[in-house]
Amino acid sequence: MSKYSPIIWKEDKLYLLDQRLLPLEEVFVEVNSLEECAKAITDMVVRGAPCIGFSAILGMALWVKSENHFTSESVDRACDKMIAARPTAVNLSFEVNRCRKILKDLLAQDRSKDLLFAAMVDFGQQQIEESQRINHSMGSFALEDLKKRVKKDKWNLMTHCNTGFLACGSLGTALGVISLAHKEGRVEHVYADETRPYLQGSRLTAFELGKENIPYSIVVEGAASYLMVHGKVDAIFVGADRIALNGDTANKVGTSTLSIVAKHYGVPFYVVAPISSFDLNTKTGAEIEIEMRPKEEITQIKGVQIAPVDASVVNPSFDVTDHRFITGIVCEKGFIDPSIPGEVERVVNS
Amino acid sequence: MSKYSPIIWKEDKLYLLDQRLLPLEEVFVEVNSLEECAKAITDMVVRGAPCIGFSAILGMALWVKSENHFTSESVDRACDKMIAARPTAVNLSFEVNRCRKILKDLLAQDRSKDLLFAAMVDFGQQQIEESQRINHSMGSFALEDLKKRVKKDKWNLMTHCNTGFLACGSLGTALGVISLAHKEGRVEHVYADETRPYLQGSRLTAFELGKENIPYSIVVEGAASYLMVHGKVDAIFVGADRIALNGDTANKVGTSTLSIVAKHYGVPFYVVAPISSFDLNTKTGAEIEIEMRPKEEITQIKGVQIAPVDASVVNPSFDVTDHRFITGIVCEKGFIDPSIPGEVERVVNS
Repeated sequence: MSKYSPIIWKEDKLYLLDQRLLPLEEVFVEVNSLEECAKAITDMVVRGAPCIGFSAILGMALWVKSENHFTSESVDRACDKMIAARPTAVNLSFEVNRCRKILKDLLAQDRSKDLLFAAMVDFGQQQIEESQRINHSMGSFALEDLKKRVKKDKWNLMTHCNTGFLACGSLGTALGVISLAHKEGRVEHVYADETRPYLQGSRLTAFELGKENIPYSIVVEGAASYLMVHGKVDAIFVGADRIALNGDTANKVGTSTLSIVAKHYGVPFYVVAPISSFDLNTKTGAEIEIEMRPKEEITQIKGVQIAPVDASVVNPSFDVTDHRFITGIVCEKGFIDPSIPGEVERVVNS
Repeated sequence: MSKYSPIIWKEDKLYLLDQRLLPLEEVFVEVNSLEECAKAITDMVVRGAPCIGFSAILGMALWVKSENHFTSESVDRACDKMIAARPTAVNLSFEVNRCRKILKDLLAQDRSKDLLFAAMVDFGQQQIEESQRINHSMGSFALEDLKKRVKKDKWNLMTHCNTGFLACGSLGTALGVISLAHKEGRVEHVYADETRPYLQGSRLTAFELGKENIPYSIVVEGAASYLMVHGKVDAIFVGADRIALNGDTANKVGTSTLSIVAKHYGVPFYVVAPISSFDLNTKTGAEIEIEMRPKEEITQIKGVQIAPVDASVVNPSFDVTDHRFITGIVCEKGFIDPSIPGEVERVVNS
């Protein structure tokens, strides 16, 4: 597990960092039951697909601990209750359904409550460790390429949105690369853009960088050209929500804008994401539908109105970065050069 | 004067729109004396270089109205008091020093108080009308070029920061072009980016567009690539703080970033600014020093903390747009194609 984790399992109890209070307050919530865990997921105490999955598995362990009589039906009821905490979170149902199978298999073998409990705790911790291993391996591949491409003792790096331990429960993806580079003493400075409208950069990434004592500055997204024309950025690392067969990448709105500026100034632009983000059935980014988000994300900040009340907005949640602007896509299987046709498929299926 | 003006002179009194309350409240402050006018300038009730200048001239009229005995010394005292309201505002001292000269010339000719008063009121109103005329002429030149370049019945336009009647007291520069196009029935939709950190787009430009019933949406700056890749922007109009001899243009941070994205998608990008913005002693944009602004503009919004309290920021007020990304610079003397060497100097000195 990462040195600092938003998910702590200690003396058979789960503690979750209340991410709603970040970056101003750092409060861990004690979670004692399936119900409390489901509520924490519903209320977004915990966020980020991986973190939600890990919390749910450990929440299932808390359910086993509280239960004395186990049947296939009671397992189903518990699992369904957990999944209902955020019905649209794919990773939540994926992990809880794996818990369901493990528990039912053990019940079929007539195993004890203690063994069921240990199985859930182990599964949760294994998943966190596996994620950490995957993130570490992506980080190594990314740094290997960067070292060849930008021959400097220390780099100035830039990132967009939030991809560190708060979202991943482990090292993180794009921010994981930056953490690894920092551990190797290779980071001069990090520029985290604030990432409007939801401010993941200034609220979360800034918190993570501070926790790891990595020197950083927050910038507005418009400052991208200013920073690059002044030579202040050696490379940019971002995450991905979905990667198409040709390497086009859907990620938080602003990523594509940043990639175009990076291309103009010749700054290497890396996408860092696990295999689970690739969707090889999507041929190009043009097929990816972009969700539109509510107006209030732009017209209000923390409940304070900043635009005319009757203003209309266009608020796309994501944009698609053209693969021609991506220097490299890094997953746990290695480095992908998206300018080589067929390379995404080759590496993902390797 | 524009249909809606933040500066109203009525029955020998000055009324200023309190721009600090925008866009949520629309309150005009009655200004009855030089002192009240100076305070309104200091407290930023009124903002934008042209508006500050116009208000100051009409504030000098209020001083004449309240005074019974005029000497060269009393004129100096009044002028100096007005200039001290915002000592670094170049336009304020420029206009007040013109008032000083007019008043002293009239005193030398032994003219009456009534004539001094009328001279000040006339001068203020002339300056507003002159600004309106200049803005109108810039708008016409810009639309003439756009009509040749983008042959559509109605255009989707985009702008950055605030360049309308709130800043200019008249039609406006970049937003003036959009207003003119709207009056000709040629505007389909306007995208106003919010313009972080100070939110001039969502606070002021959105208010102006609403007042003129121009259909608009606010977007985050990161959405620039999303909008352009989907063909939603036919042209972009921005203002300028300073234009160098080669056409490089300093303007609100984010302008250069936007221009690079526009260039990539082949979207025409216009700078609209009066002759007074040109500085032909500055050879290229590289010579322009960029002021750094306080951290709190990024870490707080309306006093609400949004980033870690100990976060550091890099907050450049401006950036420099490379002249190669500017389709045309439009001033009251005509259209400048900055890709033609010497064209800036030729038109400015014509």
